[in-house]
Amino acid sequence: MKKFNEKLSKFCKEKNNRLCLGLDVDNSKLKNSSLKYLEDYIVDIIDNTIDLCPIYKVNFAFYERFGSDGFKILEKINSIINGRAISIADAKRGDIGNSSKFYADAIFNFLEFDSITVSPYMGLDSIEPFIQYKDKGIFVLCLTSNKGSEDFQMKISNNKEIYKYVIDMAIKNNYNNNLGLVIGATNKKYLKEIKSLSGNLPWLMPGVGFQGGDLKESISIGEKNGIAIINVSRGILNAGNRTINDIRKATKIYTEQIRAVL
Amino acid sequence: MKKFNEKLSKFCKEKNNRLCLGLDVDNSKLKNSSLKYLEDYIVDIIDNTIDLCPIYKVNFAFYERFGSDGFKILEKINSIINGRAISIADAKRGDIGNSSKFYADAIFNFLEFDSITVSPYMGLDSIEPFIQYKDKGIFVLCLTSNKGSEDFQMKISNNKEIYKYVIDMAIKNNYNNNLGLVIGATNKKYLKEIKSLSGNLPWLMPGVGFQGGDLKESISIGEKNGIAIINVSRGILNAGNRTINDIRKATKIYTEQIRAVL
Repeated sequence: MKKFNEKLSKFCKEKNNRLCLGLDVDNSKLKNSSLKYLEDYIVDIIDNTIDLCPIYKVNFAFYERFGSDGFKILEKINSIINGRAISIADAKRGDIGNSSKFYADAIFNFLEFDSITVSPYMGLDSIEPFIQYKDKGIFVLCLTSNKGSEDFQMKISNNKEIYKYVIDMAIKNNYNNNLGLVIGATNKKYLKEIKSLSGNLPWLMPGVGFQGGDLKESISIGEKNGIAIINVSRGILNAGNRTINDIRKATKIYTEQIRAVL
Repeated sequence: MKKFNEKLSKFCKEKNNRLCLGLDVDNSKLKNSSLKYLEDYIVDIIDNTIDLCPIYKVNFAFYERFGSDGFKILEKINSIINGRAISIADAKRGDIGNSSKFYADAIFNFLEFDSITVSPYMGLDSIEPFIQYKDKGIFVLCLTSNKGSEDFQMKISNNKEIYKYVIDMAIKNNYNNNLGLVIGATNKKYLKEIKSLSGNLPWLMPGVGFQGGDLKESISIGEKNGIAIINVSRGILNAGNRTINDIRKATKIYTEQIRAVL
């Protein structure tokens, strides 16, 4: 059984790409807002981009708002991808051990996602149940792409920002080679330092495009000693008239931009 | 339209109780592990304790592990409670604004919960979309009951623990009188100080019983200037042979213990 970070690296290298397509489809912007249409649309997006994309990320908020019907779509995502790419459940879970165990069961076993995003606020014991799944990946929120990242993540304790303690925890607990970090591409001036601290942990980088992160810089710094995954959601999903053709074209453009830096 | 914290206080005072029954039922421990049985069991628990309980809390991990079928039970919880008590979605969500908006929509509009637990790691802008629902409540993770609370929450920045910055943020943004704090009852030696800092924000207190928190102390400190909600899950759900009668008896015992301190 391959460890998650090896699998991630394999997909990225085979497809010569680091693009993570965020399947955060806002159905109210589609010509038909029904969930059946949304599901077919997602099937089409995946099937028409999977030769290029090594990774797909699903933000659970976009599906949970439809309750169990939204969850039914989440249940299908991994059979659509069908082992052709890595999937990330962008669910930002985190609870005491007992409950985190059940979240891990939900995301990894029941929904069959390859990986998850988790929040570190409750500490290591809230993340440990996920780490025990050796072939599954855990991207820990570290320095995020939003303005609120300043509120707690950037607070300095003993000459060191809180998010750097998250890096330490991830490095120390990467015994199953399945931990990664969420590093917002918007944090341009900190990327080099974070790279020097985070060893070979893969980065999941949101914030390129719409939020102002720089693709070229993110890749060139992020790819030192490790994989840097560039997440793009709105930048691709809102392309042109949102036809599958428009989405494929945008995916190709991002792919070419990434390949030019690799 | 009553603001959430007023509604919470009203239910607690009318029932002369501060007990929050955590509906974290582990179906594998029931004599029938089917979801239909689980749902009926929950209906029975609620109907047979609601004369006593002002609040019910549902930990989403226990339901999400059944995927959409688990979500179907979550969809029914609030029609079972039917306005007879306050409901808390213990979902610990938190994402960038755009996504948090959808989580708020999911929990407050679609699932009709009265309140939610959120993680503050991503900062104020990740919580703001929830605050905009004036009649709904937001319990922000502050100092939690697990061992991992030491890892980041207790880090000291500028002579002040990180969790105290969370208190500051909640106080400052309680303009809709709908914010509260999650304060683990296990943190005995800090409770008095937290009370002095947190004004009249209500506390949601897990950790009594199984995890070692003291009920009497939690109530007597927590109830100064505000409401202190005592969450009990396993301590009630695992009572006796887990019959509805056993559960009602345990609920009564906790209720009496709480009333003795009020």
